[in-house]
Amino acid sequence: MTLLALAVCGRGAVPPDEPVLHADDEGLLRGRAAFETMRVYAGRPFRLDDHLARLAASAERIGLASPDASGLREAAAAALAEAGAGDAVLRLLWTAGRAGGAPVGLALVSSIDVDWDALRERGVRAVSLLGVAGEAPWLLGGVKSTSYAVNMAAEVEAKRRGGDDAIFVDANGVVLEGPVTNVWWRRGDTLYTPSLELGILAGITRATVAEAAAELGHDVVEGAFALAELAAADEAFTSSSVREILPVVELDGAPVGDGRPGRTAHELQAALRRAAAA
Amino acid sequence: MTLLALAVCGRGAVPPDEPVLHADDEGLLRGRAAFETMRVYAGRPFRLDDHLARLAASAERIGLASPDASGLREAAAAALAEAGAGDAVLRLLWTAGRAGGAPVGLALVSSIDVDWDALRERGVRAVSLLGVAGEAPWLLGGVKSTSYAVNMAAEVEAKRRGGDDAIFVDANGVVLEGPVTNVWWRRGDTLYTPSLELGILAGITRATVAEAAAELGHDVVEGAFALAELAAADEAFTSSSVREILPVVELDGAPVGDGRPGRTAHELQAALRRAAAA
Repeated sequence: MTLLALAVCGRGAVPPDEPVLHADDEGLLRGRAAFETMRVYAGRPFRLDDHLARLAASAERIGLASPDASGLREAAAAALAEAGAGDAVLRLLWTAGRAGGAPVGLALVSSIDVDWDALRERGVRAVSLLGVAGEAPWLLGGVKSTSYAVNMAAEVEAKRRGGDDAIFVDANGVVLEGPVTNVWWRRGDTLYTPSLELGILAGITRATVAEAAAELGHDVVEGAFALAELAAADEAFTSSSVREILPVVELDGAPVGDGRPGRTAHELQAALRRAAAA
Repeated sequence: MTLLALAVCGRGAVPPDEPVLHADDEGLLRGRAAFETMRVYAGRPFRLDDHLARLAASAERIGLASPDASGLREAAAAALAEAGAGDAVLRLLWTAGRAGGAPVGLALVSSIDVDWDALRERGVRAVSLLGVAGEAPWLLGGVKSTSYAVNMAAEVEAKRRGGDDAIFVDANGVVLEGPVTNVWWRRGDTLYTPSLELGILAGITRATVAEAAAELGHDVVEGAFALAELAAADEAFTSSSVREILPVVELDGAPVGDGRPGRTAHELQAALRRAAAA
């Protein structure tokens, strides 16, 4: 992702090449920063309010002062105005700031450098990996902090094993989530997705998909499901704001369903795009 | 910790108030940065070479380019020269840098703002918390990355429960490590500490303590031990570069040994200081 435009809360737009963070910002030194990433469609961020609400929840969980929502909204608008009206990624960052200092809010608009549509056509080869179930609150399950090295390492491990992405399971083999996605599968007309009670991230796109699926006549069942249920599904897919709906065509080397992108993934991708255009 | 002096690899000393990091540094955005923290005694960092070696190992585990050891050494010297000859904390940071850009190396010298000697006198009240065993490589056990939010959240949780610090145990109740320390206990003349095979951090001070303990005539046994063994010890303590040796006088509300700082912790603290002055 290439940074197209940048704005700092209280300062407005600044050149992307200008260093804006201090070396002792605790967001960097200790991962004490919350963030949100969302798709921008033709210059408009999708579900900004929902993302701001989740940012506030993440900040609380890691002991940060409450984010300045109006300041972040202004920063987002300033960065989006700089970047122009294209499709892009908007990232909001709320860091602890320097020791004893004030938090810092940033809005970054970046280009989408990966051709997710091509992967949507082909389908994702997923690899299951042991993940961290977030039931103990201090393990920060469901919190979008910048302590993201494990998520990144899991993506690297999935690629090392010949896959495209990882799906985390807990020590009992219960499906959790992907490093940056929520996970779904369909059997007949019923969609299944792991319950938020497992300590996974409450995806904004997950919520959008659940609404759209209900409108399309699917039952949506949330719970704690074994990986074998996902493996035996008619089709599977992931949801995320930036990647949108990506069909999962392979799990740990075996085809999911008929090994091709499924019709429900296709339907829901179209529904997501309609919601974004509304 | 207050930042006293700062140097950037390739630039030398820069004013601590100067922002030096870009908003899209992946060290911040995704926790893709490795770091080392070490005590500075009278202007001299303790075991800098060992810390540089561990930094290289951490960087490799999170997929960063190999740290520029000589550049970091020069940056450390420049920052230490700026800060003067006192006791302090030196932090080395090696971040991924901007997407597609080069890594950034920083040396930060900060003041020690906590009176660790007072806590050494009184002893630490520890709280056991479920932690993440790092046996799966992508879970990054033993890696010092800036993805530190869980460690920070565990310290907050320990304080919320009336303690001073946390001790992580795995799901089977095996003692792992503290959020920023290694853990030790003594029964008779034998010292026990969790094995590195558990995926815990290979503390530089842990290694120093093991050497000093052997010289003082203690047997040192590493392994996988239940929390009950720590609870039943004659004394317990933690080791870390910045906090040095801190006696643990209480575990989950019950006294450890006679509930006072132990003699071996005291001996080893003195030995550590002698090693630092040598």
